[in-house]
Amino acid sequence: MTIKRLEQQIQFIIEIDKLKQVIRQTYLTDASRRENSVEHSWHLAVMAMVLSEHANESDIDLSRVIKMVLIHDIVEIDAGDTFLYDDKHTESKLERELAAADRLFNLLPSDQAELFRTLWNEFEARQTKEAKFAYALDRLQPMLHNVITHGKSWQEHGITKSPVIKKNSPMQEGSVSLWAYISNLLDDAVEEGYLSE
Amino acid sequence: MTIKRLEQQIQFIIEIDKLKQVIRQTYLTDASRRENSVEHSWHLAVMAMVLSEHANESDIDLSRVIKMVLIHDIVEIDAGDTFLYDDKHTESKLERELAAADRLFNLLPSDQAELFRTLWNEFEARQTKEAKFAYALDRLQPMLHNVITHGKSWQEHGITKSPVIKKNSPMQEGSVSLWAYISNLLDDAVEEGYLSE
Repeated sequence: MTIKRLEQQIQFIIEIDKLKQVIRQTYLTDASRRENSVEHSWHLAVMAMVLSEHANESDIDLSRVIKMVLIHDIVEIDAGDTFLYDDKHTESKLERELAAADRLFNLLPSDQAELFRTLWNEFEARQTKEAKFAYALDRLQPMLHNVITHGKSWQEHGITKSPVIKKNSPMQEGSVSLWAYISNLLDDAVEEGYLSE
Repeated sequence: MTIKRLEQQIQFIIEIDKLKQVIRQTYLTDASRRENSVEHSWHLAVMAMVLSEHANESDIDLSRVIKMVLIHDIVEIDAGDTFLYDDKHTESKLERELAAADRLFNLLPSDQAELFRTLWNEFEARQTKEAKFAYALDRLQPMLHNVITHGKSWQEHGITKSPVIKKNSPMQEGSVSLWAYISNLLDDAVEEGYLSE
């Protein structure tokens, strides 16, 4: 163990503190303020611990899901948070995030840089059962916050039911049952008037 | 799978959103504001991923460490954050946190309530190698933030080197090398004048 290796690790740990300042469109459940990407990531990690039995595949590697959701947004330190319904910014999202992944993960010693990059690539590619379930959680959490705050973020951005369904229904690939659950809540939201048809 | 089980899980997930509003004494590394207990917990979880090779024991179960640090502060939703150097409040800390653990974890289905409680008890008891390493991270992170902000929180509370050593040196049980690393930074902090001897 060289001191240089530990110093690289500490530099990464200090750098990622900046993710606490990347603000998302999602409101806290009491609607008092928007949450940041670290708060979102922590929430997904605990959700993975609680909800893993709802993954489509029963032999999911929970530890890998947790690691993926913990680091999935670190690229936003450079790339910023891209709102799910902002198609214009979504066009440039991949390019911005690839550059960010290059810079940020490479602050780590090279073996760990590769491990983190592999995890992030896996999340983004959404091919493994773990990545599909991690993605399902990433879609579920903001919808849940919207339902609880009576559509605060949806309404601020004029988001109607149709794009909510279109953008979020791919979470079925990770969890049919969680999609069924949140779909019911979306129907209720329309009925109660805080999500427009 | 009953709907009731999923609803209990969702109620827990919504309840723990409140941890995003529990403010700690530690400042973000740019000193712009204090951080909350969720931000702290996420930081520890990623630190576990990066620093596990520095644990005293080489065969540590990293996944267990990550789960422990993710949930270790959930009790603060009811019990509040207790400042490490506040001996008066530390007296009542255990009682407050036990009551909080009873209420909060029992929002989950009983099998999961038991799993979470067992993890939390393990962290608090600090007997296993995983709990000792998790504790080392929990001590390291605020010291690191203090060093980077030139002792902002130490100075606000008039904390000198002696209590910093006394309260934090038990982290050696989890990681001798991380303690050695931060000890050097504490010496530098004294030399540079932002931690009083």
